[in-house]
Amino acid sequence: MSLIEGLIQIRVTYNETDGQGRVHHAQYLNYFERGRVELLRSKGHRYRDLELSTGLMLVVSEFNIRYLGAAAFDDVLELRTFVIRTRGVRIEHGYELFLLDDAGSRAKIVEGESVIACVNREGKVQRLPDFLRQL
Amino acid sequence: MSLIEGLIQIRVTYNETDGQGRVHHAQYLNYFERGRVELLRSKGHRYRDLELSTGLMLVVSEFNIRYLGAAAFDDVLELRTFVIRTRGVRIEHGYELFLLDDAGSRAKIVEGESVIACVNREGKVQRLPDFLRQL
Amino acid sequence: MSLIEGLIQIRVTYNETDGQGRVHHAQYLNYFERGRVELLRSKGHRYRDLELSTGLMLVVSEFNIRYLGAAAFDDVLELRTFVIRTRGVRIEHGYELFLLDDAGSRAKIVEGESVIACVNREGKVQRLPDFLRQL
Amino acid sequence: MSLIEGLIQIRVTYNETDGQGRVHHAQYLNYFERGRVELLRSKGHRYRDLELSTGLMLVVSEFNIRYLGAAAFDDVLELRTFVIRTRGVRIEHGYELFLLDDAGSRAKIVEGESVIACVNREGKVQRLPDFLRQL
Repeated sequence: MSLIEGLIQIRVTYNETDGQGRVHHAQYLNYFERGRVELLRSKGHRYRDLELSTGLMLVVSEFNIRYLGAAAFDDVLELRTFVIRTRGVRIEHGYELFLLDDAGSRAKIVEGESVIACVNREGKVQRLPDFLRQL
Repeated sequence: MSLIEGLIQIRVTYNETDGQGRVHHAQYLNYFERGRVELLRSKGHRYRDLELSTGLMLVVSEFNIRYLGAAAFDDVLELRTFVIRTRGVRIEHGYELFLLDDAGSRAKIVEGESVIACVNREGKVQRLPDFLRQL
Repeated sequence: MSLIEGLIQIRVTYNETDGQGRVHHAQYLNYFERGRVELLRSKGHRYRDLELSTGLMLVVSEFNIRYLGAAAFDDVLELRTFVIRTRGVRIEHGYELFLLDDAGSRAKIVEGESVIACVNREGKVQRLPDFLRQL
Repeated sequence: MSLIEGLIQIRVTYNETDGQGRVHHAQYLNYFERGRVELLRSKGHRYRDLELSTGLMLVVSEFNIRYLGAAAFDDVLELRTFVIRTRGVRIEHGYELFLLDDAGSRAKIVEGESVIACVNREGKVQRLPDFLRQL
């Protein structure tokens, strides 16, 4: 089991908030996707090139999320994305999202896990490319 | 344990799709939210009135989703939203989303469960109003 | 100059609102797109088939919007979409969006115009298919 | 007429693209909003504080956009946001969005202008606060 860290900062934009004045709960999946893309980049790979060069796509097959707190417009968040495990055609990622306040303290507001599968253009499940299994 | 059904149809719009030509995986949480709102309406309640009249808000505290298939632009989907259980300050909902094809057959493409908590404007957890506990 | 009407109703969903408690201003372009798709369908054409069968895509080249009012979560809107003119490779659409209140009165809240161009998969501008020019 | 520059970089995320494999045309208004927020911040003001402390909101009353090119997932964009003019209750902004390629060259892909009005919580138009008129 490899456990690799990737850390990005996210500034909440206005369109990501909803009528409750908070980040809409669906939006966090977009943040987590950003985390996966940047984790891959930090390892020297671009997800875009993967799609273009191999014709393979990574598709989400499962997502589990716990919401512990909330974020508002213009908040700065810190997202930790990590690989929990890779198995055959699947990668499991974990996510921890923290709200940073002006005083520098951090509070975890969302956490979750996803399972991503590798498919070809026809949607058929494919073995993960080697570089993804070695993450 | 009460188990109440609510059924809505959803037409996939262009902006809900992504570069893979499919509905983006985060978008399904928006569909499920629509399902909860319409389930409540079918019982004679408007979620908007709840927020305006009582000052209470329902916030998502947990979401678990399995993606079994995919939907594309202009597809027609059928969403079944149901209450699994209500407990104190929380409601558990279940979701089953089906893709309808032109021949009339249905294939389940996404399923999931959520836990929703009732909070006041200060974000403090509150007991569910009676009409919500009796759903 | 042809002037063809298409009318659809839209129910505002929670994720379409923002921290001001109103529909986010960018969201109206998604509503207008829905209007164009349904206008086409009312004439017997599916935009999806156009993309799949001819490989042609319609891309937005210009949008002008005036915001006259606001809509909130769960509001019911009526959108009128019409063709102002078609020229060579371009279609100009007009939009009028009304807020319907419970008493049945209508107030215009957004209006606009767009110019849509027809391109092939390489992004090269193409003459509009005949059926689009005759709308 | 004041003309003040603000420059930000934007990385296109997956959820911002659509089935044509490009950034959805409505998404650019979200980028432009980000540009206004950062322009304000570069002048020492936080839009969030404006809403919280004065109860005033800036609402979009007009938007005109020309799409000259397209952006794809993971592209890096450079957005220039500037104030064209302030008048009584309104600010006019201009926007120029460039696609940066790996070789360092820039191509303008979207440009536009918006009119923003200042309103209070009741939606009544208010004179711009002094610091906004002096931008």
